[in-house]
Amino acid sequence: MDEVKVIFEPQKVVLIGSSKIREKVGMTSPRLFKSVIYNMKKFFHGKTYVLDVDGKAGYDKLSKLPKIPELAVIMLPPKHSVEQAEKCAKISVKALVMITGGYGDERRQQLLKIKEEYDIKILGPNTIMGVINTANGLNTTFERNVMPKKGNIAVISQSGGVGACLLDWACFYDVGISKFAFVGDKIDVDDVALLRYYGNDRNTRVICLYMEGIKNGRKFVEEARKIVKKKPILALKGGITQESAKRARSHTASIAGSDEIFDAAFKKARIIRVIDIEELMNAAVALSKQPPMRGDNIAIVSNVGGPAILAADAVARNNLNLASLSEKTKRKIESSYPGVNATNPIDMIADARAERYSKVLQLVLADKNVDGVLIINMLKSCFFEPEDAEVIPKIAAKYPEKPVVDVPAGGEDFALVYNVLGNTNIPLYDLPGKAVKALKVLRAYGKIIEKH
Amino acid sequence: MDEVKVIFEPQKVVLIGSSKIREKVGMTSPRLFKSVIYNMKKFFHGKTYVLDVDGKAGYDKLSKLPKIPELAVIMLPPKHSVEQAEKCAKISVKALVMITGGYGDERRQQLLKIKEEYDIKILGPNTIMGVINTANGLNTTFERNVMPKKGNIAVISQSGGVGACLLDWACFYDVGISKFAFVGDKIDVDDVALLRYYGNDRNTRVICLYMEGIKNGRKFVEEARKIVKKKPILALKGGITQESAKRARSHTASIAGSDEIFDAAFKKARIIRVIDIEELMNAAVALSKQPPMRGDNIAIVSNVGGPAILAADAVARNNLNLASLSEKTKRKIESSYPGVNATNPIDMIADARAERYSKVLQLVLADKNVDGVLIINMLKSCFFEPEDAEVIPKIAAKYPEKPVVDVPAGGEDFALVYNVLGNTNIPLYDLPGKAVKALKVLRAYGKIIEKH
Repeated sequence: MDEVKVIFEPQKVVLIGSSKIREKVGMTSPRLFKSVIYNMKKFFHGKTYVLDVDGKAGYDKLSKLPKIPELAVIMLPPKHSVEQAEKCAKISVKALVMITGGYGDERRQQLLKIKEEYDIKILGPNTIMGVINTANGLNTTFERNVMPKKGNIAVISQSGGVGACLLDWACFYDVGISKFAFVGDKIDVDDVALLRYYGNDRNTRVICLYMEGIKNGRKFVEEARKIVKKKPILALKGGITQESAKRARSHTASIAGSDEIFDAAFKKARIIRVIDIEELMNAAVALSKQPPMRGDNIAIVSNVGGPAILAADAVARNNLNLASLSEKTKRKIESSYPGVNATNPIDMIADARAERYSKVLQLVLADKNVDGVLIINMLKSCFFEPEDAEVIPKIAAKYPEKPVVDVPAGGEDFALVYNVLGNTNIPLYDLPGKAVKALKVLRAYGKIIEKH
Repeated sequence: MDEVKVIFEPQKVVLIGSSKIREKVGMTSPRLFKSVIYNMKKFFHGKTYVLDVDGKAGYDKLSKLPKIPELAVIMLPPKHSVEQAEKCAKISVKALVMITGGYGDERRQQLLKIKEEYDIKILGPNTIMGVINTANGLNTTFERNVMPKKGNIAVISQSGGVGACLLDWACFYDVGISKFAFVGDKIDVDDVALLRYYGNDRNTRVICLYMEGIKNGRKFVEEARKIVKKKPILALKGGITQESAKRARSHTASIAGSDEIFDAAFKKARIIRVIDIEELMNAAVALSKQPPMRGDNIAIVSNVGGPAILAADAVARNNLNLASLSEKTKRKIESSYPGVNATNPIDMIADARAERYSKVLQLVLADKNVDGVLIINMLKSCFFEPEDAEVIPKIAAKYPEKPVVDVPAGGEDFALVYNVLGNTNIPLYDLPGKAVKALKVLRAYGKIIEKH
């Protein structure tokens, strides 16, 4: 059995906290405890028990629970947390999610001893937000009513703050999530175990990592190399300079190592590295919706000239190529639409509507010189209407081996087209440069797969 | 008198279009004409006359207008546009905004002849959207009811599409605008004339350019060098590769020149170059609200560890320094907040609220080793409430020589804090890396000013 499965797929969960204790600095707080209870009762499909060590809410003792839960979520100060962890272990709870931080060496040792003596799995301590599984509604975060929509992107975050930011981003921008793990200090369950679980999870198509340090680098690389044959792994590494790496060490007790070592490890593991949170999310969305790109040649199909030129610039900056369309493709486009110059990037002119997008996209995708397509459909200064975008996924679906991404550039324009295409398999970006970066990641994964 | 003033500050404007003609490919359209009329009647403080060459809406002849307008906005096919331009010139209209494109050489020559014979100013042709002046409500765009809020950022866009995208971005993200000019083919009014006008405009504090080519490079550089002593100029250049430059040539009839030449010209002109639309807007907001930065040393003040580490990474990537706080500053912070490690980036821990932000920000700004401050205040996973952010502009105002930018990282978190700080002089960014880039631009402008 998968060793961390029980953390994500329990039938019964006990939440252990306090309706009284409020840490001066830390996450033990009656209010946060209430929020976790709220989230679990609202979202979790299984059974949730509440154990209040101060006896006000729910049960006051483990022994009083009607059944033995497989998972305990503990949010108490370190001393109390360790006591509760041992009690859980004794009644054969299978796994613990330890929310709070601030553990000294002694408490950490006590936890490790419990883990070894009882063979109990421990996520944390210092996970801050714990875990989310959108498949069964498990949500141990204390962000009241915050639940991402179901999807196929799984996240592992070593930092509570970065994880929270990714979670906030996913919810706000409607990014579909399968699983979320806030790993914190990783005294037991680590990236390797989580990667293996996500690797086998059929709800997960893309894995995102935020990491500051790693303990067992060789195993991590080995595991990742196996997984990327089936699904891509993206990594954002925090602490690239000596100064910030030092900070990361005190932040999550990481052995950070130099950035060069990480970079080499990611390359060896065939993990795709990104440099910020938005890139991570944008790349994940592309990989979760579109096929890897089999070559470097991008066609740009636009209803405006300037943004198409900026897209072409971004193609060059990202070391991709502007596809040279075949003469046949060009001739067909230009004869159908007098006034349109079909040299890539193709400016179909401001009056292009669904029919022209449909025909040109079809011709471009059919061209063997094209490996992927970036569409720009602005509304402002153009005749395009949001519903016109409906043709894009339809035509793209005929060429399942070639990625298509769409750029309704700007603010409101993006929001309007998102309403139409947000739930389709066409990834949307608000600026051409972001879409090109997403295609670059699809190309990177294409190369990774070719190697196998 | 400023030669292009009349384009932005007319008392009376005539809109010349058709309620019948619809170009197959082009911007002449009864619907768009109606939208311009709508915008002018709704927003413009002066007098708007409508001249419909098909005689259905408003006046049917120039001679019937009760008074002579200073400005005519013409949106008809090239042949008709040129005819109307000449009629306007004959009755002493001072300036023309030529919306539509598709001019051949002959029409272009005719326009130039009119300009020379009558000494009339011409913006365009092919401006697509014309001009906006938020001070007097002038808005010749055909985007119905789209008007940015008043502010001190002025824009010149050579591309209708990029300009429309910038306009959409400004409206959606609530960026304050003073003037907007879509310059199109620049047969008369060019960047130099507009720069000079913006340079003297007291409502404008920052100038943004999108350009694909330039005709009089030497004059442009000279003019810009004069203006940047008073206000910064930002430039986004489209067409960086040979391929895309060729495209730009056909797009806006630009003599594009190699990217290296532009880069050298921008450096000589002391124009700050950015590489995409979001960077342009983010940098403009920073420059419009905060002072230039006098040194490279950034302090990071955060309530979360991971995002602070990512901010520190971005500081290094952007060739800025993490400030070394004085021992005195550190001691004061650490003695006030046990558990907080005051090494920069400062992680004030998740329970930091207004009082802690206020005190630490004050101490950090007072430290002579600090030239600028990046604040991170996440809500998710933290105790911070949006109203806590109110202390930030208050403390920042005490140190008017040191820039402060704020990062409520993520999606909803950003929106919630934006509600509180959006109208203050603190620029807000949704990710640490974007805020660091903004500080980098403030530093760049600091260096430009030092040179003078």
